[in-house]
Amino acid sequence: MELETYCDRLAKLAVEVGANVQRDQIVAVTYAPGMEPLIYAIARRAYERGARFVDPFVFDGRIKRIRLENARDETLDFVPEWWGQRVLALGENKAARITVAPNPDPGILDGVDPERAGQDNLPILKESVNLIKDQSTNWTIVPYPTLGWAAKLHGDLAPAEAIARLTDQLAHILRLDEEDPSAAWQARGDALGGVAGRLTKLRFDAVRFRGPGTDLKVGLFPGSNWRAARLDTAWGVEHYANLPSEETFTTPDPTRTDGTVTATKPLDVAGTVIDGLKVRFEGGRAVEINAGTGADVLRARVAKDEGGARLGEVALVDKAGRIAESGSVFFNTLLDENAASHIALGNGYRDAVDQTHWDEINDSEIHIDFMIGSPEVDVFGLDANGSETPVLVAGDWKI
Amino acid sequence: MELETYCDRLAKLAVEVGANVQRDQIVAVTYAPGMEPLIYAIARRAYERGARFVDPFVFDGRIKRIRLENARDETLDFVPEWWGQRVLALGENKAARITVAPNPDPGILDGVDPERAGQDNLPILKESVNLIKDQSTNWTIVPYPTLGWAAKLHGDLAPAEAIARLTDQLAHILRLDEEDPSAAWQARGDALGGVAGRLTKLRFDAVRFRGPGTDLKVGLFPGSNWRAARLDTAWGVEHYANLPSEETFTTPDPTRTDGTVTATKPLDVAGTVIDGLKVRFEGGRAVEINAGTGADVLRARVAKDEGGARLGEVALVDKAGRIAESGSVFFNTLLDENAASHIALGNGYRDAVDQTHWDEINDSEIHIDFMIGSPEVDVFGLDANGSETPVLVAGDWKI
Repeated sequence: MELETYCDRLAKLAVEVGANVQRDQIVAVTYAPGMEPLIYAIARRAYERGARFVDPFVFDGRIKRIRLENARDETLDFVPEWWGQRVLALGENKAARITVAPNPDPGILDGVDPERAGQDNLPILKESVNLIKDQSTNWTIVPYPTLGWAAKLHGDLAPAEAIARLTDQLAHILRLDEEDPSAAWQARGDALGGVAGRLTKLRFDAVRFRGPGTDLKVGLFPGSNWRAARLDTAWGVEHYANLPSEETFTTPDPTRTDGTVTATKPLDVAGTVIDGLKVRFEGGRAVEINAGTGADVLRARVAKDEGGARLGEVALVDKAGRIAESGSVFFNTLLDENAASHIALGNGYRDAVDQTHWDEINDSEIHIDFMIGSPEVDVFGLDANGSETPVLVAGDWKI
Repeated sequence: MELETYCDRLAKLAVEVGANVQRDQIVAVTYAPGMEPLIYAIARRAYERGARFVDPFVFDGRIKRIRLENARDETLDFVPEWWGQRVLALGENKAARITVAPNPDPGILDGVDPERAGQDNLPILKESVNLIKDQSTNWTIVPYPTLGWAAKLHGDLAPAEAIARLTDQLAHILRLDEEDPSAAWQARGDALGGVAGRLTKLRFDAVRFRGPGTDLKVGLFPGSNWRAARLDTAWGVEHYANLPSEETFTTPDPTRTDGTVTATKPLDVAGTVIDGLKVRFEGGRAVEINAGTGADVLRARVAKDEGGARLGEVALVDKAGRIAESGSVFFNTLLDENAASHIALGNGYRDAVDQTHWDEINDSEIHIDFMIGSPEVDVFGLDANGSETPVLVAGDWKI
């Protein structure tokens, strides 16, 4: 698909289905240099839909790298107060938010001192957690085929070919090659909503992942509800938080995860690739974190606060989605988390738990997803006695 | 000069002499997409000098154009509160500020409905006036050879050649081709400071411009002091507000400008080129504004507030500077205002007036410079009786 067509179709999808921009809303768009063709298309669509103002926010991973290479140690965790104030104001203004991934490009910090890299969380802001918690904004995240990302994935091709290849992959995964991508995503949302509804009705006490290097039990609340990525704001606007999205997820009990889990894909944490990740949990806490590369960056991130070492999300993904089908690793959470079942260290989502348990949800300024599913990892639902119901076997739904 | 060399040398000059970045300062950098090579060099220099944080702010003129073409009429003057709050916070934090011109590119709004264009002042924020007034930040403005600007100036050349040509012109004007550009600018600052000192001592009651289509008297305060662009913050840090700068300026009495003035160069107001401008003043107010193109945009801007139609600045430029020498029109105030004597509608600078007159300085959220000087326009100093002292004749200093 031509990049221009990709941008036009994705802009329409992001504005109409993803964020579902409402008349007179402020639309915050977060992106990286080089993504302008998509941003211009989004701005046009948003204004045509009656938006009050498109508020661009550019985050440049190369400036982050320059900082990590040159700034004084004691300044690396500094963030100007107005960065967070803007985010809180977006919540107060009930804004729409569209974030374009990847940002920064995967691996842009490769070779940077991991201890220094672990101190600078940008572009992630602790204030963003409040917007998710309060469901105050209608938001979405969508991908753009950046040069750096294409080079990481298709380094054997010339740059223009690598971008063309990645654009085709993303267009297919995003269903932009369908007659009506919006309708295709609403249909997929209905299907995933159906799975989530059945899982919720089964009222499992825990889910168990079993496969090579993995035997992990994740305890749930009695009020954990399974959700798909089609969410609602507190004031009643439906939005599709991730496009693509193939997951059903819930918020687990942060005190009841035990066992060992081996990541089935590498992940990129704010520019550092973490490969060969293995985590051991005891009583809900990640007590051991090891990896082939990048373990220090993840450990520093997890040590940010008390909730950093506990789970805020568990999500199930079957093998029928277009990302799993592609068999590729994208080094980006938006894509990779929708290829495989995953868990997330850090903050949990309220909208997946009955209100009586909101105080028990894990609280943290981080939320780091990592992939633990594959067709070799089976998933079971456990009842309070420990008896197992097959949920995902060889990557297929059994419920 | 190679663009890379240009960026390295200008970054050093902007950080060390222009803003004169101090240890532990926040450094706000405002720029347009495409200027990244200079911004990365500035970020590196700033962090090497001990800056606490480089705070990038990207303003994209194409998004502004998309807004003006698509947004609802009644939303066009809306600016999210956090844009101005950030600017005020920069003042409270005594930040350094580096702005890269042109932004937006000259003429980027050509063909847009002028009435709509006149309602959207961005990237100019009314809060910026406070920073200037309070002298709370050490700031500078420097130029970058953007593709759009190069195409506007050298449309007969291929894009790469047009940029190379403009880079050479700017490098020469910025004295980047000198052995030590910083020392060259300090020497030029000393010379312009000398002229300013002599002008201040002469204590003129007014200055008079006389040439083709121009006979204008600009009244001064008894306490109007002439200054050069090397300024001080209220807390004592010297900075070079514009690079290049070839002017000596003062803040006039906003109630005593009379006569007619014809602009000697076109000017660009936030993306709209205004050509053939002619303004008539009565009792300090611009009572007639006419132009070949863009008059409506300027009229709308001037009508923003009471002070918009009165003068906040009068500046003298001799023909010896490198911009005047080039004979070019750059369609950008930073360059063009330093090629020729000029006046500015809107807000005045406190640091050019004794404190006893601060309440009388013109107050406005606009500050629009336009060029009225040339070797054909002579400038005289008037004493209270109206007797004339030659100041600039045929472009040469006579004092």
